[in-house]
Amino acid sequence: MATRKQELLARRKRALGPAYHLFYDDPVYVVRGEGCWLYDETGRKYLDAYNNVPHVGHCHPHVVNAIADQARRLNTNTRYLHEHLADYVERLAATLPAPLSVVYLVCSGSEANELALRLARAHTRREQVIVVDTAYHGNTNALIDLSPYKFNGPGGRGKPPHVHVVPTPDVYRGGFTIHDVGEAARHAGGVAAFFCESALSCAGQVILPPGYLREAFDAVRAAGGVCIADEVQTGFGRAGSHFWMFETQGVVPDIVTLGKPIGNGHPLGAVITTPAIARSFDNGMEYFNTFGGNPVSCAVGLAVLDVIRDEGLQENARVTGEYLLDGLRDLARRHPLIGDVRGQGLFVGIELVHNRETKEPADREASEIVERMKDAGILLSTDGPHHNVIKIKPPLVFCKPDADLLLRVLDAYARLYG
Amino acid sequence: MATRKQELLARRKRALGPAYHLFYDDPVYVVRGEGCWLYDETGRKYLDAYNNVPHVGHCHPHVVNAIADQARRLNTNTRYLHEHLADYVERLAATLPAPLSVVYLVCSGSEANELALRLARAHTRREQVIVVDTAYHGNTNALIDLSPYKFNGPGGRGKPPHVHVVPTPDVYRGGFTIHDVGEAARHAGGVAAFFCESALSCAGQVILPPGYLREAFDAVRAAGGVCIADEVQTGFGRAGSHFWMFETQGVVPDIVTLGKPIGNGHPLGAVITTPAIARSFDNGMEYFNTFGGNPVSCAVGLAVLDVIRDEGLQENARVTGEYLLDGLRDLARRHPLIGDVRGQGLFVGIELVHNRETKEPADREASEIVERMKDAGILLSTDGPHHNVIKIKPPLVFCKPDADLLLRVLDAYARLYG
Repeated sequence: MATRKQELLARRKRALGPAYHLFYDDPVYVVRGEGCWLYDETGRKYLDAYNNVPHVGHCHPHVVNAIADQARRLNTNTRYLHEHLADYVERLAATLPAPLSVVYLVCSGSEANELALRLARAHTRREQVIVVDTAYHGNTNALIDLSPYKFNGPGGRGKPPHVHVVPTPDVYRGGFTIHDVGEAARHAGGVAAFFCESALSCAGQVILPPGYLREAFDAVRAAGGVCIADEVQTGFGRAGSHFWMFETQGVVPDIVTLGKPIGNGHPLGAVITTPAIARSFDNGMEYFNTFGGNPVSCAVGLAVLDVIRDEGLQENARVTGEYLLDGLRDLARRHPLIGDVRGQGLFVGIELVHNRETKEPADREASEIVERMKDAGILLSTDGPHHNVIKIKPPLVFCKPDADLLLRVLDAYARLYG
Repeated sequence: MATRKQELLARRKRALGPAYHLFYDDPVYVVRGEGCWLYDETGRKYLDAYNNVPHVGHCHPHVVNAIADQARRLNTNTRYLHEHLADYVERLAATLPAPLSVVYLVCSGSEANELALRLARAHTRREQVIVVDTAYHGNTNALIDLSPYKFNGPGGRGKPPHVHVVPTPDVYRGGFTIHDVGEAARHAGGVAAFFCESALSCAGQVILPPGYLREAFDAVRAAGGVCIADEVQTGFGRAGSHFWMFETQGVVPDIVTLGKPIGNGHPLGAVITTPAIARSFDNGMEYFNTFGGNPVSCAVGLAVLDVIRDEGLQENARVTGEYLLDGLRDLARRHPLIGDVRGQGLFVGIELVHNRETKEPADREASEIVERMKDAGILLSTDGPHHNVIKIKPPLVFCKPDADLLLRVLDAYARLYG
């Protein structure tokens, strides 16, 4: 490791909390980004097949110019009138099906899910929440309580009494039924909300089985609860066939929460809900978020929507996603290590197993392959409760030559470790 | 009201949640900012004597250039090495007294206080929290529970069982003793934390009486709790005499939380704590904040620290703050409407009363004066449980001529409404 990197590591260790982690055994010191590519301090380039935050590509000039221009002009808050705010909430609401039409702007996915919980509680006057096993909804006190990925993980305090956990609807491993959420809703005794990522990230890039959300939403609504789609990891065209991942399930949530890709890295998040829920929340308590909805953040949000439209990125996610999935399925036919390939658009998981019958997780191999592919210049990561799922969720400018490169290198390592 | 504004108001009303509020009967449509000045759509300028977020002045070129340059180069997250991250956490930690040395970066003051609560609970393995009446600590579920300003206000759900509220230590109105926090700590039966703004904002720009935090911190620590200084509204040199408001009380907190001014409007927040508390928090659960500590936010944070140092803004807060307070005290001698003038640096409150004996709050007058001063081109606001305190907390570039203008116009209206 270069001296410069060792020094940075040591300095970081001194002043940054020890609960922070770094990627990779030999962490990457990135100094520049462009499109799907990151460059380290030596000028070496890496194909970014993993980061879903720089959604329209690292340092996209249209987004960068929007930040710079608006920062130079004005940055205030939502207690003043501003055109960008009106423009942005309208444009954002227009991407969603009726009756989702009322927007709140915040600074992160965690702030979005916090507000969604407040909205659900204000509307139902209830406390109970249903979540899916291995879900992650945010890093605040109330959201760790809604995240089995955290409360059942190292250092976790276990499941709180107001939370009901249904099994991960993982088609590959099974152990669930399409009626689980309904059962939970009927037994919860007054459910406020069902929180669900529209495709499951920390659970290991799990695509919900057809009909899952429809059945769940019907049951939760019958029990008087509201249905919250957490699109923090999945939204803004990543699904390819649809702009929002929940649309692939043919449902309309009561509340949708947005984060990560919404500002291409700028701290931004949003909550969109129905007029009825918004009215319940308007109970006399002002909602104010110091930075949420400031003119710079709105300019960034608008620029991201521009690029997705102008560069046809949803269609690229569909076409490149299908191409990549085809290529991965071809690899799976040749490498027994690959137990499952799944995905929707550019939200993709590759599950590695020692044995296709027992499905024994090949976690060490997944981790080794991710490390070696990093050395070979391709950035990926692992996820899932068994840490054996390689996740691919690149910026949406990821194209066929990028997919070819990834497939070629993965082929070599799958052979080596298979 | 101009047509353009009416149209903006109508559009905003349609798509933005109804729980959002606007400032002023006739809201300001701001299009440009520079230093202490905001400009509306007609080119009319307003002296900003109220916004503490654009700390080093609206659209400061050094900060704007830092945002633009870094956004053009790279924006990733804390799982990669980056020089700005190491630089910023070191620079931030260096502004604080030992043993405060471990930094976490987040996106807002709310995220900072959320994390502070998690740190306190992880360290003490307790739940009970002591807060000051009329405190506001953030807009998330757990923080509204710690904010009497919210839970006792319209739409609030009242005090939760794990929260203990001590009276506002308001020297002007009394009704407290310096032993209140100690009493609460002894009776709480296992206190995790004492949360306290280092000067009280929503309580009406209240300056803590000398010795208040020293006595409180001693008692909370004796009871096994940790002491959290919420510097979201008060930090970064605003106190004038000191860089942090808690330093005016001669204490060292266990955790300090930062927000609003830290990024001059860019969504940024921070938590700084001791190595001992950081170790308790490092229990196996990773701390990750998607946007917190990204290279752009760190570049902005560094630029804000540069400007405060290079332009001597802490010293300006001291000098201009004293000058302004002298001027306001002179007004108070001539206008019986002004019951109290208080402040520390450029954190200032003017409490209006109908009668100096009974201290009957002159809330209508406070609100009217703020509206008329806005019409005269000076932006202020009111606060306090009786809504009768005019608050002054301008960008730290606020200078003597600005203070003169404010004093001259306030003199006229205090006469009119007195």
